[in-house]
Amino acid sequence: MCPHPVNAPDDAVTQKPFSFHLTATDGAARSGEMVTPHGVVRTPAFMPVGTQGAIKGVHHDDVHASGADIILGNTYHLMLRPGAERIAALGGLHAFMRWPFPILTDSGGFQVMSLSALRKVTEAGVTFRSHIDGAMVELTPERAIAVQNLLGSDIAMQLDECVSLPAESTEIERAMRLSLRWAERCKRAFESASPGRALFGIVQGGDDQGFREQSVRALIDIGFHGYAIGGLAVGEAPEVMRKVVAETAPALPTERPRYLMGVGTPADLLAAVARGIDMFDCVMPTRNGRHGLAFTRFGPINIKNAQHADDPRPLDAESRCPAARDFSRAYLHHLFKAGEALGGTLLSIVNLFYYQDLMAGTRAAIAAGGFADYVAQTTEQWSAKRDTASQ
Amino acid sequence: MCPHPVNAPDDAVTQKPFSFHLTATDGAARSGEMVTPHGVVRTPAFMPVGTQGAIKGVHHDDVHASGADIILGNTYHLMLRPGAERIAALGGLHAFMRWPFPILTDSGGFQVMSLSALRKVTEAGVTFRSHIDGAMVELTPERAIAVQNLLGSDIAMQLDECVSLPAESTEIERAMRLSLRWAERCKRAFESASPGRALFGIVQGGDDQGFREQSVRALIDIGFHGYAIGGLAVGEAPEVMRKVVAETAPALPTERPRYLMGVGTPADLLAAVARGIDMFDCVMPTRNGRHGLAFTRFGPINIKNAQHADDPRPLDAESRCPAARDFSRAYLHHLFKAGEALGGTLLSIVNLFYYQDLMAGTRAAIAAGGFADYVAQTTEQWSAKRDTASQ
Repeated sequence: MCPHPVNAPDDAVTQKPFSFHLTATDGAARSGEMVTPHGVVRTPAFMPVGTQGAIKGVHHDDVHASGADIILGNTYHLMLRPGAERIAALGGLHAFMRWPFPILTDSGGFQVMSLSALRKVTEAGVTFRSHIDGAMVELTPERAIAVQNLLGSDIAMQLDECVSLPAESTEIERAMRLSLRWAERCKRAFESASPGRALFGIVQGGDDQGFREQSVRALIDIGFHGYAIGGLAVGEAPEVMRKVVAETAPALPTERPRYLMGVGTPADLLAAVARGIDMFDCVMPTRNGRHGLAFTRFGPINIKNAQHADDPRPLDAESRCPAARDFSRAYLHHLFKAGEALGGTLLSIVNLFYYQDLMAGTRAAIAAGGFADYVAQTTEQWSAKRDTASQ
Repeated sequence: MCPHPVNAPDDAVTQKPFSFHLTATDGAARSGEMVTPHGVVRTPAFMPVGTQGAIKGVHHDDVHASGADIILGNTYHLMLRPGAERIAALGGLHAFMRWPFPILTDSGGFQVMSLSALRKVTEAGVTFRSHIDGAMVELTPERAIAVQNLLGSDIAMQLDECVSLPAESTEIERAMRLSLRWAERCKRAFESASPGRALFGIVQGGDDQGFREQSVRALIDIGFHGYAIGGLAVGEAPEVMRKVVAETAPALPTERPRYLMGVGTPADLLAAVARGIDMFDCVMPTRNGRHGLAFTRFGPINIKNAQHADDPRPLDAESRCPAARDFSRAYLHHLFKAGEALGGTLLSIVNLFYYQDLMAGTRAAIAAGGFADYVAQTTEQWSAKRDTASQ
């Protein structure tokens, strides 16, 4: 394996089958490499979210330049519009959106629960009314896999049912057990049609550690290329999320990638890496960027605050990100005050670079056996300069 | 003079005083070079509009890559927000927005007429209520020049009063004569404080050729670095605009640049170049791009039309513009249908490249003595392929 993994260049797909191996560990923290048909993903990895075939407001070139090895596509959105069959006819999601690097697709289950009206969950699957045109759509485990096959993602996710927290114990258990039966059906549907690509199972069980452990054991029995912790970042307190991760991650197979879905803040990422998580996705860098919040080495900066109106300093003169380095805070502040979309685009780029740099720093620290120091220094820098450089 | 004019590199300002010379003529059409403190502008030139210190939705790097030598900044918007004094304190408009190449600023007069409420025009100037915070603001000829000096634009425009067409003859004449008195005051205010930079006068007179000619003669007597035809693209029929240009341009001094303000479509640009116009500005490339209309060699393409939903072809496989070449029409269609802002950004870039390529083709054709053929071929290609490739 290449000691300095790089992404496949445009149009030069590796087409290697999925594999994963660790390159270093430091306590429970791990660094590694996932090989996928469209290139290598360095872990711990942060996946920007390309909900509808685009990272909101950001050109693919900037996403790639930020250092993202892999992005996430939302099956729910893409199956409804423009449609999975249409994307397949246009060459699959990589060709359609012209992102030649790895793509993970979720199963659509999470958005069905959060976005669609009149949803009905049965043993067969979930039927829901499209939020776009009101049509009734059925999503079964088999259809979720078929859709992800049509999209051609490098990593597919099982269909699961995700309940919001807090929830009744009986409801958490019911959804967890249903998700396991769907996991098995997804595995069968996937095996017949997806050479080289990967399928991840999703651990459910809410905030109940007993259920979580039952879910983990059953998923391992079915056998997946990787394991995700789902059902978090759905309304629970941060300490609940951290507790579930701390208790669940050690039960997952060492030799397979571990993905914490929908998380989170920079601090959340570091805390989860410390527990042995390898992969993350979150809309936070782009959503917060559009709303004027920049993540920097000096902590978050709300660029809309009046104190930045006359500040000639860039967000971070030492940043690898041109948008963080080249434009003054005064200019960025002005763009937001004037309602210029370029402001949201630039701060989204700043944040995507920051998240990728945080993951690169994390990987280097783990390789050097200094992850705890890296966390301490990074965290200290966030708070130490907060009073002078931010808010 | 350099035979292959290039823009000044970042931070390497030429600081040469303003000058203009023709490099070729072909009938009434002219090509030339304007030297400005921030670099050379090749004419005929199209200036993208950076109303509030940004070309809407487009990163400066893409504006520069499109081939734009110069952009336009709107004095009205910038004086109200973030304020001319603030921009000056931050190093001027070039440094503030980080566009190190030439900038032309309008005087603010046009937007006072079109955007502000409770405006009152007197001999002294115009007083208006800001559309942002409701404050009463006074814009005199002297203040218009002071603001443009604070912004530090390479080319400043006189304050004028622009009337919408159709209008009463007495109203057109009153505004034209007031604009001439303001032109004289602008000239005086400008001379004391703007070494190396240029000031353009603006011909008014509505659709009355007698008034237009009086305006031209009086402006020439005052003496400006360049002359603009204003008061068009304000509601008149296209043939009125073309008639005024055809009759006014020949009266302007041969050795000075001629700027047709606020125009227009690709066809408008070619028609005006044929009459001897050297400079244009218009929001059309970016505004139409945001609304899904792409300008291409094959005529305009409305990417939102359903026929593009499954079309794997790019907008123009031969284009110099990556966005026109690399993304399928199906993908661009999807971005608009899905409400992804990236769609508007990509089509704005496509259009900015198209306008610049049209100007580059125009300059090359004039230099080769084949401008009429170029217009015929370009126009034929727009209409010949319209049935198959567009709408």
